[in-house]
Amino acid sequence: MEVLNLIIEMAKKAKEASYTTAKLSASTKKDLLLDMALNLEKNIEYLQEENKKDLALAKEEDLSPAFMDRLLLNEDNIKNMVQGVREVAQWPDPVGEYIWTKRRPNGLLISKVRTPLGVIAVIYESRPNVTVDAASLCLKSGNAIILRGGKEAINSNKAMVKVLKKSLMDFNLPLEIISMVEITDHQAVTILSKLDQYLDVIIPRGGENLIQAIKKEATVPVVFHGKGNCHLYLDEEANLEMASKVTINAKVQRPGVCNAIETLLVHKDIAGKILPGLIKNLQELGVEIRGCPITKEIANSIKEAKEEDWQEEYLSLILAVKVVKDIDEAISHIRKYGSLHSEGIITNSISKAYRFAQEVDASAVFINTSTRFNDGSKFGLGAEIGISTQKLHARGPMGIEELTSFKYLVLGDGQIRE
Amino acid sequence: MEVLNLIIEMAKKAKEASYTTAKLSASTKKDLLLDMALNLEKNIEYLQEENKKDLALAKEEDLSPAFMDRLLLNEDNIKNMVQGVREVAQWPDPVGEYIWTKRRPNGLLISKVRTPLGVIAVIYESRPNVTVDAASLCLKSGNAIILRGGKEAINSNKAMVKVLKKSLMDFNLPLEIISMVEITDHQAVTILSKLDQYLDVIIPRGGENLIQAIKKEATVPVVFHGKGNCHLYLDEEANLEMASKVTINAKVQRPGVCNAIETLLVHKDIAGKILPGLIKNLQELGVEIRGCPITKEIANSIKEAKEEDWQEEYLSLILAVKVVKDIDEAISHIRKYGSLHSEGIITNSISKAYRFAQEVDASAVFINTSTRFNDGSKFGLGAEIGISTQKLHARGPMGIEELTSFKYLVLGDGQIRE
Repeated sequence: MEVLNLIIEMAKKAKEASYTTAKLSASTKKDLLLDMALNLEKNIEYLQEENKKDLALAKEEDLSPAFMDRLLLNEDNIKNMVQGVREVAQWPDPVGEYIWTKRRPNGLLISKVRTPLGVIAVIYESRPNVTVDAASLCLKSGNAIILRGGKEAINSNKAMVKVLKKSLMDFNLPLEIISMVEITDHQAVTILSKLDQYLDVIIPRGGENLIQAIKKEATVPVVFHGKGNCHLYLDEEANLEMASKVTINAKVQRPGVCNAIETLLVHKDIAGKILPGLIKNLQELGVEIRGCPITKEIANSIKEAKEEDWQEEYLSLILAVKVVKDIDEAISHIRKYGSLHSEGIITNSISKAYRFAQEVDASAVFINTSTRFNDGSKFGLGAEIGISTQKLHARGPMGIEELTSFKYLVLGDGQIRE
Repeated sequence: MEVLNLIIEMAKKAKEASYTTAKLSASTKKDLLLDMALNLEKNIEYLQEENKKDLALAKEEDLSPAFMDRLLLNEDNIKNMVQGVREVAQWPDPVGEYIWTKRRPNGLLISKVRTPLGVIAVIYESRPNVTVDAASLCLKSGNAIILRGGKEAINSNKAMVKVLKKSLMDFNLPLEIISMVEITDHQAVTILSKLDQYLDVIIPRGGENLIQAIKKEATVPVVFHGKGNCHLYLDEEANLEMASKVTINAKVQRPGVCNAIETLLVHKDIAGKILPGLIKNLQELGVEIRGCPITKEIANSIKEAKEEDWQEEYLSLILAVKVVKDIDEAISHIRKYGSLHSEGIITNSISKAYRFAQEVDASAVFINTSTRFNDGSKFGLGAEIGISTQKLHARGPMGIEELTSFKYLVLGDGQIRE
């Protein structure tokens, strides 16, 4: 009960604070973000000290090296974070943009104007840098923010929020513009997700379990960054050299991220030509191949793929390979197993590229290039808070613009409706 | 269990059918909609016969005259419905629009392209015309649709869907493009709202109870048309004649709709001048006034407003009136009681209009004109499926464009990520 009241109180105050952030001028927001960057920089040592507490606890808990790596705040990644805030500061302000204005026959002047969303709650797991990234993007877009990070990074997160609030204080702004829920059990998430009276959107950043739990509980609208079970289809009219190069890039360049591919689909007429060399290259780069029976006939050193292999987001150096009889089978496979994230085709055929682009449902479809490009900065959209795999409001890289809404402004001179 | 399987099967087939609707050319969709209009016209008698069954049942159940009126399909309103379908047919096709294209430094050509959402479920209550309106808008935007109307209109709805499916048959299209859930208890809604694997959005059209139930249950994203507790604020710098004219229009012209006002806020400095005459005029038009203590001092014939009066969406000829000390109190009152729908100010002051426009959070803000203009056709946006009072994806009149999503298409020539 006490936790409930505490969080409701926080949400109420965040709503109140959001009326202030919505009014901040572009130049104030820019100055504020630059001040935050400076304060973070000044506090590199303090942030590292607090982070060490989290690292020590994680070590006691015997968490994995990959986990420890995500948790670490060293001088380099604090500097990167600060650099990120400075970049966000320099971006054009999205709030108040007149998307269009039209004059109606009765003389009414109707404008569609970009506005902040209001209060954004970001629920995340162990990466402490999300605290600063999310806060800067939400502030730039005129929103108040409620942060709820994972318990493993609690000391780091508290320290960063303290530094950010220092800037709010310097600018005489309500401290509730950035709030942090320090209760790290799931109960806090359950409570937050039902406060649609105060929160305008919840953005879960984390694994499938977290996302599914929030989708189930939430009455607040959710925009999520779901899993990436991404495919690359090598069509029979593919340039084979390009096909190999892009496959290797999409799998190997950074296998632990959502826009790397998990399954390679290969047209039967080129499978015999391309797969022996490509599989060998991939294996030399440390990739484990799990293939369909035809793939296994071509390269018998590999493991056979099971049904689960088509479903899984490996996020590691494993690649499932399936030989298909045509583009229809490729599209069907993607419809069945894909997660609407990033899907690619290598082909020299305009008609097949056209079909693939039209019929494959994903946040981004790639023709003759790597799925790894599904990224806000690579698309020229600036920093992102995640890649949305849903279709409402935000799809693909979710940047500053996706953290806004709009309203209609109607200016008249006494017009009434007949 | 059988109901569950039936609805899952329907949703699966709708998903499959949505791949067909997504590919339909603009001209096919136009011809199909015109054919539907023609078939509806040919079947006016049949539709009326089936509607009579619903009307007879409603009479037995002793439902209110207002309810019977909403349920009625006579020649006139069938013709209006048909006219609506013809208008939707003529609108430009939203699907496939290139929202923007840019060339990146590495030569990638990135386009943001409008796509259908996929499968849209519309849950509604007694108005049978929603069946045809919703089906035509969803089809035009390339979606498959699952309809679930209220039990009171079941015969009318089945008849209309039968006629619409006749056109699908004539065009050799899958009949699952338009499905109807004939199970009219809430269980069907509960099941639908959890099928996020197949449904891309749920649009509830109905009362607050329906919307709250769906928000609570749904894992499918929801876009809702919530209640309209709308306000008009008469500033001390208002033109009094305009203020009276707009107040009367916003309350009386059609009191039963969501964009009519429920509360009038009046600056204290003009209350004594404007309220006596305005209240008299409103009373003569049949409006019951419920006022704050100051209003009651000015016009003692009125009832005193209770706390509930500031909260209620009357949808009838009742108006709550409150005298406020300044624009701050007006904005605070709207923030506390408003439903983010339509909010208006009458003022001749640019600075106060600016403040009101910026600080009042609503789908549409009206300056010196009636809130009754919050409407797709009045905004020049075409037919609408409702007025969204949420801030994600769709806000205000929800037309064809809001029934679409987008994807990024990335065309390369072998580019890989370094």
